[in-house]
Amino acid sequence: MHSPVSQVTGFGVLMIVQIILLALFWLFVRYSDEALPLLEGSELGEQHVSKYPHFQDVQVMIYIGFGFLMTFLRKYGYSATGYTLCMTALVVQWCILVKGYFHMENGKINLSLESIIDADIAAAVPLISMGALLGRTTPIQLLFMALIEVVLFAINEYIALNIFSICDVGGSITVHAFGAYFGLAVSLMLRPAKDKNEPGKHEGPNYLSDIFAMVGTLFLYVYWPSFNSVLADGNGQERAILNTYLSLAAATVTTFVVSAIVSHENKLDMVHVQNSTLAGGVAIGTVCNLLVGSHGAILIGIIAGCISVLGYRYLTPRITAVTGIHDTCGVNNLHGMPALLSALASAIFASFVTKEHYKSELGQIFPAMGDVPANNNSTIILGGFERTASAQAGYQLVGIAVTLLVAIVGGILTGGVLKYTGVRKLQKDEHHQDELFWEVPEPKED
Amino acid sequence: MHSPVSQVTGFGVLMIVQIILLALFWLFVRYSDEALPLLEGSELGEQHVSKYPHFQDVQVMIYIGFGFLMTFLRKYGYSATGYTLCMTALVVQWCILVKGYFHMENGKINLSLESIIDADIAAAVPLISMGALLGRTTPIQLLFMALIEVVLFAINEYIALNIFSICDVGGSITVHAFGAYFGLAVSLMLRPAKDKNEPGKHEGPNYLSDIFAMVGTLFLYVYWPSFNSVLADGNGQERAILNTYLSLAAATVTTFVVSAIVSHENKLDMVHVQNSTLAGGVAIGTVCNLLVGSHGAILIGIIAGCISVLGYRYLTPRITAVTGIHDTCGVNNLHGMPALLSALASAIFASFVTKEHYKSELGQIFPAMGDVPANNNSTIILGGFERTASAQAGYQLVGIAVTLLVAIVGGILTGGVLKYTGVRKLQKDEHHQDELFWEVPEPKED
Amino acid sequence: MHSPVSQVTGFGVLMIVQIILLALFWLFVRYSDEALPLLEGSELGEQHVSKYPHFQDVQVMIYIGFGFLMTFLRKYGYSATGYTLCMTALVVQWCILVKGYFHMENGKINLSLESIIDADIAAAVPLISMGALLGRTTPIQLLFMALIEVVLFAINEYIALNIFSICDVGGSITVHAFGAYFGLAVSLMLRPAKDKNEPGKHEGPNYLSDIFAMVGTLFLYVYWPSFNSVLADGNGQERAILNTYLSLAAATVTTFVVSAIVSHENKLDMVHVQNSTLAGGVAIGTVCNLLVGSHGAILIGIIAGCISVLGYRYLTPRITAVTGIHDTCGVNNLHGMPALLSALASAIFASFVTKEHYKSELGQIFPAMGDVPANNNSTIILGGFERTASAQAGYQLVGIAVTLLVAIVGGILTGGVLKYTGVRKLQKDEHHQDELFWEVPEPKED
Repeated sequence: MHSPVSQVTGFGVLMIVQIILLALFWLFVRYSDEALPLLEGSELGEQHVSKYPHFQDVQVMIYIGFGFLMTFLRKYGYSATGYTLCMTALVVQWCILVKGYFHMENGKINLSLESIIDADIAAAVPLISMGALLGRTTPIQLLFMALIEVVLFAINEYIALNIFSICDVGGSITVHAFGAYFGLAVSLMLRPAKDKNEPGKHEGPNYLSDIFAMVGTLFLYVYWPSFNSVLADGNGQERAILNTYLSLAAATVTTFVVSAIVSHENKLDMVHVQNSTLAGGVAIGTVCNLLVGSHGAILIGIIAGCISVLGYRYLTPRITAVTGIHDTCGVNNLHGMPALLSALASAIFASFVTKEHYKSELGQIFPAMGDVPANNNSTIILGGFERTASAQAGYQLVGIAVTLLVAIVGGILTGGVLKYTGVRKLQKDEHHQDELFWEVPEPKED
Repeated sequence: MHSPVSQVTGFGVLMIVQIILLALFWLFVRYSDEALPLLEGSELGEQHVSKYPHFQDVQVMIYIGFGFLMTFLRKYGYSATGYTLCMTALVVQWCILVKGYFHMENGKINLSLESIIDADIAAAVPLISMGALLGRTTPIQLLFMALIEVVLFAINEYIALNIFSICDVGGSITVHAFGAYFGLAVSLMLRPAKDKNEPGKHEGPNYLSDIFAMVGTLFLYVYWPSFNSVLADGNGQERAILNTYLSLAAATVTTFVVSAIVSHENKLDMVHVQNSTLAGGVAIGTVCNLLVGSHGAILIGIIAGCISVLGYRYLTPRITAVTGIHDTCGVNNLHGMPALLSALASAIFASFVTKEHYKSELGQIFPAMGDVPANNNSTIILGGFERTASAQAGYQLVGIAVTLLVAIVGGILTGGVLKYTGVRKLQKDEHHQDELFWEVPEPKED
Repeated sequence: MHSPVSQVTGFGVLMIVQIILLALFWLFVRYSDEALPLLEGSELGEQHVSKYPHFQDVQVMIYIGFGFLMTFLRKYGYSATGYTLCMTALVVQWCILVKGYFHMENGKINLSLESIIDADIAAAVPLISMGALLGRTTPIQLLFMALIEVVLFAINEYIALNIFSICDVGGSITVHAFGAYFGLAVSLMLRPAKDKNEPGKHEGPNYLSDIFAMVGTLFLYVYWPSFNSVLADGNGQERAILNTYLSLAAATVTTFVVSAIVSHENKLDMVHVQNSTLAGGVAIGTVCNLLVGSHGAILIGIIAGCISVLGYRYLTPRITAVTGIHDTCGVNNLHGMPALLSALASAIFASFVTKEHYKSELGQIFPAMGDVPANNNSTIILGGFERTASAQAGYQLVGIAVTLLVAIVGGILTGGVLKYTGVRKLQKDEHHQDELFWEVPEPKED
């Protein structure tokens, strides 16, 4: 039975959160210089908004890409698009504060285009976790999970990038692996009792919901080069674009092949087409601005496509059967394992890095291997600035290991909070349907 | 009964209009210098197309955003997307001529990227009005309404920006308020007889039409920062982006909260999610490049979200019951009242403007408060160029008041023309369905 | 009966193709200088990614535009979006190699942003052909057709642009005409036996598939100025944007008018709205960066809209009846005839070209009419560099004639290969449905 009271309480708390956000912005956030009026005679500069087109592409990925990718459930389209919108709107505000906290100047957070690019990228993290849980939580559970998760994400990212000084320009380690395994850990805590492990009666797609999901897939596909390259600089940005483009293409062809080979009656499976085609974007993420070569990008894409389809076909059902962990969207196959591949690839490529090849970009891509950067005074990098290539490779592996640790422990604790506190939980037969929390129009005859 | 003859007559007149447009372009329009070949040796410049990405974002908002937002009616999807396309294609040509008329040089209109940015923004005006009337007019009525409306819009905009010299970079006053109240005034004229005031039998969404509408919502949401910042310059452009981003986010969280609190059984309402989430973009429009602070943007978003949801829930049904004015998409709640809020906010913020804060941007944002601009020789600004902050605040209020006056009187007159001339009108039971004007495929069993 | 074995064989061969592509990239492709790290002290340049926003717009057109435009078939939405994705992912890799072959340096192909822009444009070619064949081939037939077609396209493009030195910045001749008539020639070879010429029983749209198709139409419409201008330079790029914008608008208004006049009961026809509105983009393509004037662009749009609607209404049924050639999407009306119009227009406008009008852009737009370009040493242009305007006009006509020849002969041969080799063919009652090659969910009652 639906309880209006708990619904109102939950959203009432959300209103309080929004007002607290307002107060924190009032106290701590100011426009950065690039968004403030200049003195008379200063030169007008628009160069700092040169990343604006990239930013808009990422916006489309977050709101339309993620939102529509999750509309594949036939009775959960309002929730997929609606909660994506609400969660992102909440998280980006929170993220500006949380990530800004690490870079305060004189007790103030500087707000610039970079802040909202970072916020959009961070919003991907709870959206990935939401994919694991899709249809099995209330909106309030999702939103509070997201608030906790973003803090842990920001801490882990700070450790990985600023202390371990790993390279991860496309965020496969800090965003995709973190989001996927955090979500799966929450899913572990919220797993149903043993005897209720069959799929929900409302779960699954219909013909049209699968086509709606392709809106999400295709926008994610098209703009993924922007996601991976938005934080890259100089010529490394173009490499990030090219490698991502090729890895996605190779993963896509591979996905169709493997899907046709392993699926029932050798028919293509829309789950694979919607998701595994994108695995190439995740798998190239960490290394997309390295000198992996076009063949390296294609090879990574091929492996990612294989792993992802085989994961959907064989691994996910097995994980659910053995551990009881549900993974509605298969985030382990789209984000988790391809991100592990990306981390592994980054260790391999890092072990071959030389000053001779990377020239002026060495210190920019691997700050711990270059000269001491002038404008990076807040960074504490382990082992100073003269790291060897093999040490860098080791740190890449430490980076993914710590990320997994923080994600899984954090996810278990967060899942525990969602499970054992008074927050309303869903019953099995309430899963995967909009009706519980949304006004749904009656089917009409005309 | 559908009358082919009147349909053909109407579209025949439209063809004549298109040919007249061709003739007027032939006579009066030439490429501006930035689109003409340069003399040998001149430097090739691409800098004038630096706003092209912004322009493309606005294009998506107009054609896909508005078009799909209106597909929420379950039997009116062809009309929503089709008439949006046709009306915009007609209006942008007309608008280049109408707005160009105010800035002719030697009897010629200069065509440049700026012209088509302006034309796209102007196209939003009749699309907003169409939202008020959706499903209750013929396509011919809509198209001719648009032709008249754009002229009145251009005149009012000229008065507001060039004579009253108000700030309105995001167009909340000149575009959103104008479009909404013009449309409502037309709706007043076309209101049904008293005894036919119940909702149309074909009105309302179904499950899938509501998801299609989210395509519109999400693209409007994502690209709204581009709409508000496309006409801003220098660092003010980045502020416009940041403020719009934050206002939208805050309005969205607020919309979900208020929707859950006020709706039936405390369920979320897709009408609110589709529309009120965007109210933050309208409400910040006029002030988005001012120094409102990130907290100011968030506060405006919160208020806009509240006003908009409460408007949908309580005010619109009441207006319809009392006055007979129908407002199919609720443009008063998405565009009208948030635009009034934006105008009010602009008066408040304008009253605190100082040269000290706005530095070199003062004369650019508030031409009447800065020095005499060198390149603005066609402008006649009331009260010269030494306006005080409180005078500017007053002019902001005069700007919205005159806009309301022109929109409402213009809408009443236009509605009268549509009602009392020989143009074909729809009967009540012809409302909100595509079948009357479109070939609709028979439902198939397979 | 569906044969899993042949399906697996086909996709197995596809896997081998992907691995061969990997090997070829490994052997022959390297990053171009603009994607390689610079020496210390060199200036970081982002200017070479200035076309990145254009590129992303083209990406949307290819994957979402083409993909969704073809979802209008009510039982073929998985195939429309899925095969578009798979074919493009395959073709872009192949195209980088094929087009790169013509511009090798020291036996290596340079990979840059330009390469993937070219690859995306080339991907449009087999997608257009796929439109002619939609629903009547297996995915394997489509993919192998695409591999052959892209080679012929690249050869023909090289002949047209580098030997005949025609202007075709928007690709109407080399992309649209080629793709359309190649596809129709394949369709000729695959035409059914005489007695099976009626429409397929699964052919045709339903209400929702027509709205999905509008997602494709509107994204193609919105981003078409980017498609036509992405390869234009300097001020010609802005002209390309302006002319394409106006031609599309005029074609759209004309489409609605003509559709209402010629359709059954004078109702609007979604086929026209989805397709003929875009004919303006094709028809302006070859001449979009010329000095056609805004009225020239509008006039071309009007003619294109007329031709296209009349083609759908009268010509296509007649062609099918007489020759047995099916054209599922009507590519002759959207791409074919408007491209012929564009070629004709290019001959007319070329015949008036003077150095006086085109100034510094003459040699850039018409290389054979300008001075010997310094950086174009690989070009063999017929008749040297002092071509007259009327000679250029003649070459434009030769360009389209040769393109038609290569496309039609190539299409007939390719169709022959698809027909007479062991590749699995579809039976008539297998047409236009996803079920044969896709897992399709059972309709659910809830």
